[in-house]
This record gives sequence, structure tokens and C-alpha cells, in this order.
Amino acid sequence: MRIAVDAMGGDFGPRLVVPATLAALRRHPQLQVLLLGEGDDFVAQTRTLEPALAVRITVVECGRSVTGDDKPSAVLRRKLDSSQSQALAAVAAGRADCALSAGNTGALMAFGLYHLGTLDGIERPAICTALPTIDGSLYMLDLGANIEASGAMLHQFALLATLLAQAVGQRSQPQVKLLNIGSEVGKGLPHVLDAAARLQADPLIHYGGFIEGDQLYDDGCDIVVCDGYSGNLVLKTSEGLVKMVSQLARQLLVRSRWVKLPLLLIAGTVRKLFARFNPGRYNGAYLLGLNGLVIKSHGSANQRAFEFALNNAVAACQNQLLSRVQEALYTSRTPAAQAADSARPSRHSVSIEE
Amino acid sequence: MRIAVDAMGGDFGPRLVVPATLAALRRHPQLQVLLLGEGDDFVAQTRTLEPALAVRITVVECGRSVTGDDKPSAVLRRKLDSSQSQALAAVAAGRADCALSAGNTGALMAFGLYHLGTLDGIERPAICTALPTIDGSLYMLDLGANIEASGAMLHQFALLATLLAQAVGQRSQPQVKLLNIGSEVGKGLPHVLDAAARLQADPLIHYGGFIEGDQLYDDGCDIVVCDGYSGNLVLKTSEGLVKMVSQLARQLLVRSRWVKLPLLLIAGTVRKLFARFNPGRYNGAYLLGLNGLVIKSHGSANQRAFEFALNNAVAACQNQLLSRVQEALYTSRTPAAQAADSARPSRHSVSIEE
Repeated sequence: MRIAVDAMGGDFGPRLVVPATLAALRRHPQLQVLLLGEGDDFVAQTRTLEPALAVRITVVECGRSVTGDDKPSAVLRRKLDSSQSQALAAVAAGRADCALSAGNTGALMAFGLYHLGTLDGIERPAICTALPTIDGSLYMLDLGANIEASGAMLHQFALLATLLAQAVGQRSQPQVKLLNIGSEVGKGLPHVLDAAARLQADPLIHYGGFIEGDQLYDDGCDIVVCDGYSGNLVLKTSEGLVKMVSQLARQLLVRSRWVKLPLLLIAGTVRKLFARFNPGRYNGAYLLGLNGLVIKSHGSANQRAFEFALNNAVAACQNQLLSRVQEALYTSRTPAAQAADSARPSRHSVSIEE
Repeated sequence: MRIAVDAMGGDFGPRLVVPATLAALRRHPQLQVLLLGEGDDFVAQTRTLEPALAVRITVVECGRSVTGDDKPSAVLRRKLDSSQSQALAAVAAGRADCALSAGNTGALMAFGLYHLGTLDGIERPAICTALPTIDGSLYMLDLGANIEASGAMLHQFALLATLLAQAVGQRSQPQVKLLNIGSEVGKGLPHVLDAAARLQADPLIHYGGFIEGDQLYDDGCDIVVCDGYSGNLVLKTSEGLVKMVSQLARQLLVRSRWVKLPLLLIAGTVRKLFARFNPGRYNGAYLLGLNGLVIKSHGSANQRAFEFALNNAVAACQNQLLSRVQEALYTSRTPAAQAADSARPSRHSVSIEE
């Protein structure tokens, strides 16, 4: 199990990524890491690795790193030798089973399309993550890779997430719902209505109808599918609201002095509540639909959160997510399409939203 | 100050609306109410009103009520004599200054367009409500009246909300932001980019750029503008999340027995926290852009929440929201457009999204 880790992404770079990677190596004895980066911080962090772990790390010095402001089209012209790009190139070349980066999402998507291409039958990759719900979690996608999506793309997203939920989420028949406003049949934007008809007709998908934002967190469905604009809006709104609630709770509780003793008594319970919604616990989004495993960590992830993303990468490898998806997509296609397969180029042209 | 109250809307109908209306009459001595409804519950509730309040109530028996399943196009054909329709007809005829309903939103919008039409220069009405933020509140629109919106419509929404924030919200120069994914200039869906250029160029609007979902609740801006699909998504997601957090908090706190005593000690503080996010406190959305004041209560509002919606109706009348908006729209138009005004029909054709 070999994971290519981009040490340069995120708000803290190698100072956070290297210790988190060491922790993951300690936890997973069969794990090997390709550690990619550049610059003084990176060199300093990788110079004094403890020997027992160092034998399982291959340090790769790369070219100038991608920044948060770099446009996807520009990184393809100028930063193909960056750590983020080279992590994906390692997956494409079979030198790693999965890539992990906390860097620029648009650039990661661009490098993914360039080095790996999409899977057969998949037009565009989607960003998918698990979100906490009242009694468990659900997978939601697309969270921002595609501002707009056709009905056919939403159908592909539903299939990819179904396979993810089966392979990694251990759910045998995951229920898929489509995000919409209003839950009546026949109401909604055209691409959502088109997707509903496609999901209804697909025997591989256990389709459960529309879902509205207010049911998201206590509906019990396994997968919610939407375009990247809507998904990003829902995800960011939820993040903002959780932040506000925790902040106000803290303010109120700290401000009232006479509350401090009783608060200490229930500190464990309160901490448990906040932990439940800690975005760090759900860190590590899948770039589904690429012809290779790629995981994206939140840029502001702390060390614990980055370790959760690393765990997701390990789980994706252990459960052979990629080969299971490849196989399911192959089996679901008509024999004619399978016969035409050899004529098809394996990597796709790159087209990125900026 | 005369408010037309549709007693038949919402989950509880006249059993909730009538007591809430009586409470409002007690609180606002200058208030008069046109109370519209039908059926046994309505008759029972209105038969034994205390005389001191009864003199300020005009009870109007109407035809068959609109239900939650009625399509907007169907209610215009078959339910023009319903209480919801007649409340708006009363505003159009000058028999009331504002209408309030907790019924079917699509039907309310259809009746609004039919009886009142839109204001000059406004293509479509938008649903606008105040939302709690970390240090106050903001006005957000459109929350679902228009699944899609052009840049020009978003510009009109921004203008309407600016006038609302000035008249009712007592904010002298309210800052307007556009909801988007990503806050970089030039990134986003076409209608949002078009709206950004229009808001930037309008001297009546204090435009502050893009806002993302995660900043919504602690940005400090006064108004957030978006299409009805996005607004509905943000609003419903927030409602669902607040519901989940309160539910989990309650579960955790109740489950741990030894937490009960310390919890009693801080009960006031905890209650204050939940009250802050109680959607009922923000109940009463404005249907902005109609040529008359119309307020929509949430269908599941309890009596307290319905009273908040009634307070909003009273505040809209007291602050002369309609005439201020009419005047500002008139002043902001070119003299040529003002001259052409008399040639223009005052009510618009009805076109509703179903």
C-alpha cells in the first residue's frame, strides 16, 4: 500500500503534513509513503526522520509548488513538476496506489485530468465527502468540481458514489437521493429532473427521490447527488453555521461566570457534541471518476484532520476502491461498448472550469 | 393600520391564527384586522371574540381554501374566492394595508401577481427574510420565488432589499453582497457575474462583492442576494442543521443522568442560545416587489412564531414600506421612463413557476 503525499498543500505545508504522515506510518504498518515537496521547511522536516519509519518513506524533491491563487490552466503550463502534480503522476505511473493533497482544488482537478484522465463512461470527476447526520453519515457529491452538471453527469455521480458507499462505506444497497427544492415529482431545475428519470431507470442504483436541504441531516439516505454549485453552497453554509453555533455557545458559556462550575461538570458531554460536528473528522474528500485514487484534504485542516484524510486514503486502497469501480463500470456497459473499448484513448483531453 | 389575515393557512389553521391575531390586537392598540376564513373551526373561533377586540375585527367568510398541494395555475382558475386570495384582493382594493398568510407559497405568489402585480421596474417578486448572524441579522433574498434569476432580476432584488433594510431594518447604508462559490472577482455562474457588474454601477446600492456560504453567518453585511434555488437551499440547509444540532444536544444532555443537575444550573444560558436560532423569531418573510405589502408566515409556525410574522406586518405598515419603495423606484428612474408611466398597465400578466 503506497500513498503519494503532497507535503506542500494546505495552510501549514510540510510542518503539518510530515508529522501527520509519520503518525499514519506508525498506525498502519503495511503503509509506504512517497513524500513530495520542496524548499527549506520540507528539507528540514525530512532530514531527521526516525530510521524505523524512514525506510518506508521515499522523499522526492519537486519543482516550484502550486499556490492557492494559481489558475488550473496556468499550473498545467508551468507547474507540472510541482509536488501536487508529481503525486498524481506517481499514481498514473503505478508508483503509488493513491495520492493525497491539501492544495489548490482546481489545480488538483486539472492535474488529475491531465495525468489520470477519467474512467470509461465518466465525463467529469466529482468531489465527494462524508457528512455527519443525526444517526450516522451520508456521502454527498459534487461539492464543487463542476459548477454546472447535466442530468447524465448527475447519473454518473450517483453511480460512482454508490460504488464508493459499497466498497469503503460498507453499505450493501445505498439509497441515492437528488438534492432539489421541493420534494414533489416533476418540480425542479431541468438537469435535476433529467437526472431523476435516469436514476429511476438504472437497476444498479437504489433511487429514493428528491431531498430538500432541511431533511439532509436526518433523512437516513446514504448518498445525496447535486451539481457542484449546489453542493458547495450546502457544504459551506453548513460549515459557517456550525462555526457560528460553536462560537456563540462558547461566548455565552464563558461570559456567564456562575456557569463555569456546572460547565466543568458536563465538559465531557459538551466536548462529545462538538466532536460530532468537527469538520476534521470528515476530512478527506474523494475525487471520484478519475482513473486513479485521489484524496483532497481541507486546506485549513489541522494535524488530526490531515490524519483522518490519510486514513481515508488507506481505506480506499485497502478496499480496492479503484478496481471495484473500474469493474462495475465495465460490467454495466453493453457488450458493444466493451468491444469498442480498445479503440478508445485512455487519457482524456483536459477541460477545467476556472 | 389594517392587516388582512388569512386564517386558513399553515399546519394549524384558525385554531392558531385567531388566538395569535387576538394577541397582536392586544399589543397594538391602533391595529385593525380583516380576518378571512371558512369552515367549522373558523366559525367556532370567531363566534366568541371578546367585545373589546371584536370591534377591531372584521370577519369575512370565504370560499374553499387553498391546500398545500394546490398548483398555482389551478388556484387562479378555481380558488379566487379563497381566504388567501381575498386577503390580497383586500390589499389591492385598499381595504387593507398589508396581507399575511401561512398558506401555500406558490399560490400566495400567484394571487399576489394577479391581484397586485409588480412594482414599476420590477420583473418578478422575491421572498426575503431576516436571518440571525453572529452579531445581529441579515436580509436574504430570493428564498424560493424564482428558481432561476437573471442578472437584472438580482439587481432589482438588491434594490428592494436595500429599501427594506432602510425602512424597516433602520440601516442607513446597508451593504449588499452576492452569494457565490468562491469570492474571487470573475468567478461564478453567468447571472451572478452579470449582477455583480450591475450592482457595482448602481449608486443607490452599497455593493460589497461576493460572499460564500461559510461567511454568511459572520460577515457583517446587511443583505445577501441570490436566485431562489440557491436561497432556498441555504435556508433549508440551515434549518435542517440547527434542528439536528438542537436534537443531538438534547439527546446527549438528557441521556447522561449525572449531567441533569449542572444542566439545570445553566438552563437559562442554554435556553438563550437556542432562542437565538429559533426560526420562529425570524418568522414572517416579505414578498418584495409586489405592488402591495404581503407577508408569508412559515407553514409550521407555532403561535409565538405567527405573532412574530404579525409584528413584521405591523412594522411594514408603520414604516410605510410600500410608499417608500414606490417613491425610491420612481425617483431612480429616468424622466423619460417616468413620462411613459401613465401609458403602462398597472397590473401584470401572471406567470408562475410550478
